[in-house]
Amino acid sequence: MNARDAYDKLLAHSRASADIAATLSLLSWDQQVMIPPAGHAGRAEQIGALTAILHRRACDPAMGQWLDACQGSELTRDAASPEAANIRELRRDYEQAVKIPESLAVALAQAASTGQRAWELARKDNDFAAFAPHLTSLLDLSRQKAEALGYAGEAYDALLDLFEPGETVAAIAPILAELRDAATDILGAIADAPQPAPLPAGPYAAKEQKALLAQVTARLGLPAAASRLDVSTHPFSTLIGPGDARITTRFDEDDFTKAFFGAVHETGHALYSLGHVGNGHYGTPMGEPASFAVHESQSRLWENQVARSLPFWEHMLPLAAAHFPQLAGLTPLDVFRDVGAIRPGLIRVDADETTYNPHIVLRFELELALIRGDLAVADLPGAWNEKSQAILGLTPPNDALGCLQDVHWSTGAFGYFPTYSLGNIYAACLFEAAGQAIPDLPARMAAGDFAPLLAWLGKAVHEKGRLLRPRALITQATGQAPTAGPLVRHLRAKAAAIYGI
Amino acid sequence: MNARDAYDKLLAHSRASADIAATLSLLSWDQQVMIPPAGHAGRAEQIGALTAILHRRACDPAMGQWLDACQGSELTRDAASPEAANIRELRRDYEQAVKIPESLAVALAQAASTGQRAWELARKDNDFAAFAPHLTSLLDLSRQKAEALGYAGEAYDALLDLFEPGETVAAIAPILAELRDAATDILGAIADAPQPAPLPAGPYAAKEQKALLAQVTARLGLPAAASRLDVSTHPFSTLIGPGDARITTRFDEDDFTKAFFGAVHETGHALYSLGHVGNGHYGTPMGEPASFAVHESQSRLWENQVARSLPFWEHMLPLAAAHFPQLAGLTPLDVFRDVGAIRPGLIRVDADETTYNPHIVLRFELELALIRGDLAVADLPGAWNEKSQAILGLTPPNDALGCLQDVHWSTGAFGYFPTYSLGNIYAACLFEAAGQAIPDLPARMAAGDFAPLLAWLGKAVHEKGRLLRPRALITQATGQAPTAGPLVRHLRAKAAAIYGI
Repeated sequence: MNARDAYDKLLAHSRASADIAATLSLLSWDQQVMIPPAGHAGRAEQIGALTAILHRRACDPAMGQWLDACQGSELTRDAASPEAANIRELRRDYEQAVKIPESLAVALAQAASTGQRAWELARKDNDFAAFAPHLTSLLDLSRQKAEALGYAGEAYDALLDLFEPGETVAAIAPILAELRDAATDILGAIADAPQPAPLPAGPYAAKEQKALLAQVTARLGLPAAASRLDVSTHPFSTLIGPGDARITTRFDEDDFTKAFFGAVHETGHALYSLGHVGNGHYGTPMGEPASFAVHESQSRLWENQVARSLPFWEHMLPLAAAHFPQLAGLTPLDVFRDVGAIRPGLIRVDADETTYNPHIVLRFELELALIRGDLAVADLPGAWNEKSQAILGLTPPNDALGCLQDVHWSTGAFGYFPTYSLGNIYAACLFEAAGQAIPDLPARMAAGDFAPLLAWLGKAVHEKGRLLRPRALITQATGQAPTAGPLVRHLRAKAAAIYGI
Repeated sequence: MNARDAYDKLLAHSRASADIAATLSLLSWDQQVMIPPAGHAGRAEQIGALTAILHRRACDPAMGQWLDACQGSELTRDAASPEAANIRELRRDYEQAVKIPESLAVALAQAASTGQRAWELARKDNDFAAFAPHLTSLLDLSRQKAEALGYAGEAYDALLDLFEPGETVAAIAPILAELRDAATDILGAIADAPQPAPLPAGPYAAKEQKALLAQVTARLGLPAAASRLDVSTHPFSTLIGPGDARITTRFDEDDFTKAFFGAVHETGHALYSLGHVGNGHYGTPMGEPASFAVHESQSRLWENQVARSLPFWEHMLPLAAAHFPQLAGLTPLDVFRDVGAIRPGLIRVDADETTYNPHIVLRFELELALIRGDLAVADLPGAWNEKSQAILGLTPPNDALGCLQDVHWSTGAFGYFPTYSLGNIYAACLFEAAGQAIPDLPARMAAGDFAPLLAWLGKAVHEKGRLLRPRALITQATGQAPTAGPLVRHLRAKAAAIYGI
């Protein structure tokens, strides 16, 4: 078969699969935001039916034939061309899909489904023992998956690579350790400094929070015509198709900052989603996100580097105060100090920028030990509590606030956690580079003009899709290989500004 | 292959297809209720992709083999058994599907999606010319579809049969004429009688309307845990899966009756949907609606025979008045007289029970002429206006209020309109029979107890699924073949009660 014909068939197949994947996203969004209670059982069947179709398409032998026809053709000559990237990434996806036997894929999907439900109950009842058999089974299946996928170093690498192409334990362990040590340093330095004054008490009416967020997300560059903001128990961002990026949040009338930073975080994801599908390559790898860490870099950049900055609040405080009169007496610096405060806690999703990464180190070290077989499932709670004390200086009073707090392991997502810290690192690298490219960036932000930043990110990251692997993408965008340096500098500078250290 | 094995495979295939069809329903619901404006183009692609999959499944040659293995086996011995009905109806569906080439099925689905969007804009702008090319293309594709399906009489029959199995132009034209003539008679008889006093002026706050409807739909038997009520430009009802029946309405703060009767109408559809999937046969023909007319009979029965009756308002008026103090001084008879008033108008969906059917005659005659090729698309506006004057005595001032008022043609649904009048006929037949089976039905309704009626409809219609063809179903439910008689009696009796003729 002619390489060009084969390529066209590959792309048509990829686009139709993307439409099915988008439909799965809608089934999931609807289940979390809209579905009536009696609809859940039917929804699980619908998701199962579409997942089976998508899996069968992913390992369709025709894909292998088309890929073979493209391989070595002139389409792959320029490795930096969209065609070469599409062929390279479609091969990666295809080879991953065919390596996993359907029986294992089905077993994993079922274990994830029952595991998540078991975890919900176990967390509610603070009953780790009830969850332990599920975790054991998920670990066993994940090890089988790693063996099926293959790896050069160790089994964990195969799982990590699914989320973050090219990353390995050997590469990320030292970076994570650097972030942990920096956090320990900073915590030591501020130990005797007074904490900033907390923001005024509520109520912050949900309706006003929503109205404020509509203004803020629009100002950040999220077009109202291509997005929605809804309420769900667990906030998330999802792309339903080109021109349809949806985010959710959850309102706490005692504390507007929870929904606020949650929604800004999800807005960062949504801006990336609209950016990578807006490059004319929708439905092919060139129109897809580069990795989980790159996705997280976009959400964290807008949440932390932008929305927790002083210039941001110089512009946004009057807007917020128009909705919440109790904020009227504050200065931008007051808000900046509170939303940047470092207050170690037990819960990862509530953690500040500095102590967030130690939370990741804790999980990474434990899941690595579990996959390696160095830690028995039964010993996880004890190991968690011990490591929590060592890393965070806090011991959870129970497992619900300890090793049962996160959903990830209950769905078999081992190797996911490190992408959060890599995302933080990439966010800091990118923001530092953006600041050099846009010298008046703080002034622009203080004037409510976020367009230059979004345009820079669009060009440097969003429009690239999967053209480059994550580290190469960041290297090209920033002019240097990513390191923890920019993030550590950012955290130290913020601690200095807030605590006067 | 063993017939029982083949039957099991048929049913598993049917159930998985039902899950995909339910997903298509969600794509459509979301497009009408939730989607951000920039999402429409992508949605058309998604609908196209899933339609292609569904169509491929519907004409999967394995279906033909399984059906052949079942044919003549003991499973089909008792024609009134669920097995025999499933096999008969799956064969009907399969034979229809294999006749339509996939390229045509996808082209129709995509033309419907883009056609609907074009129609929305054309109606808003009162610009028939902008919609005409879409209509031309939809007509062309529909004629191709009719030819592919084949027919004994004429092309239109093939399209009509898709909505209403067994019906033909020859069979329905005289019934529609009978309804038109009855309407003309009644209009003549009330010409000199004074119109009932209109209901008090608004405002009727949308929020209060929604709260009232939540109470009313629950009282009629629609479970809140298995349904949703949302707002859309064009009210509709859709089943997203077992336990998930959604209805929409549109609020007019000057006139609460529009959303009220619209929502009761859609509730009738939703009650049928939950009834036919609640019989243990979800995902197979036995768990599907018998036809579009039977579906409409359920919505119209609850809207007209129930909610526009005097007993209904004896129960509901105090409830409504609790939300709208301006209703407090009225009697149930006042409301009954206003909501049953006969006031010819331009808009079908606002038409009263009597003049509704002439609206259908108008559309039926025009779409028949379009399909036959006797009427050119460019001449449609003029033909509409002329016929509107002849049948309704009214000429639309513009196309938005004339031939652009309905969505149906923009989705390629030619042959759909007659099912509305057949539905009205079936509703009257069924309600007359229910009244004989439940002698104290009016008193029950006046006491707010609609359970006996719902139970009777459930047993007579809902639970039967596609066990019987529509006319046979009504015949079995009522003890006699359906005719226009009961509907004409109902309309005359109501005109007599309201206008004293």
